[in-house]
Amino acid sequence: MDEFMLAAIKEARLGLQEGGIPIGSVLVHQGRILGRGHNRRVQQGSAILHGEMDALENAGRLPAAIYRESVLYTTLSPCPMCTGAILLYGIRKVIIGENQTFMGSETLLRDQGVELHVLQDASCIKLMQQFIAEKPALWNEDIGVED
Amino acid sequence: MDEFMLAAIKEARLGLQEGGIPIGSVLVHQGRILGRGHNRRVQQGSAILHGEMDALENAGRLPAAIYRESVLYTTLSPCPMCTGAILLYGIRKVIIGENQTFMGSETLLRDQGVELHVLQDASCIKLMQQFIAEKPALWNEDIGVED
Repeated sequence: MDEFMLAAIKEARLGLQEGGIPIGSVLVHQGRILGRGHNRRVQQGSAILHGEMDALENAGRLPAAIYRESVLYTTLSPCPMCTGAILLYGIRKVIIGENQTFMGSETLLRDQGVELHVLQDASCIKLMQQFIAEKPALWNEDIGVED
Repeated sequence: MDEFMLAAIKEARLGLQEGGIPIGSVLVHQGRILGRGHNRRVQQGSAILHGEMDALENAGRLPAAIYRESVLYTTLSPCPMCTGAILLYGIRKVIIGENQTFMGSETLLRDQGVELHVLQDASCIKLMQQFIAEKPALWNEDIGVED
């Protein structure tokens, strides 16, 4: 696995250690990580800081041209909100750790011309399987599903 | 105009006074405002705090059932990111101040069954027209458009 997905997984594990939801993400531009992030629902009481959103936020304000040349790595298939952020900024390529525990808006992304690579990485799957089994209510809250 | 769009406009004006982008939003549940927000790109150097996102964040963590019964008011047609957040949380009704200065992802929202009401309010339009004329580069940055 390349270093950037490893960096996203590291973020996911950091979130888990903090008592949070284990999803991580990094935004990469020309081989350099511009922003790292992980889900902060629990840690910051946040409704919007999914892993991808946190990575985008930590990357800071960027010119449109930079986003267009960037690749977003995320340990889990992007939800509708994170999908919307990808589309807003015109990010053209997303590397996804897995989509077995949660299928995000991949059809919408592909329809809009975004290149997706789904790795079905065993460590990403295991992180989410264990988390969902342990804290189903928290997971449902994060994806807007009623218990 | 009802009190909730007035509250969203008040948020937009507050953002303008702070040197920011004049877009405001409130999340309303059964006649009560759960969260107020405005675009904070300039104020917080944020890439994700659009008005709607800020209102959702300020409303805090909520059960899925509350979002489903809530109405989101926003002074401007929701961009792809804010649209995604609306879809993630299953918000069923969005009141939009105007969509003349910027057309967001209204087709996607309607296709997903979200009820939209576009007011084409003169004060919302004027706020954006003046802002876009004065700071076109900042506006383009906010919607991911290259100068």
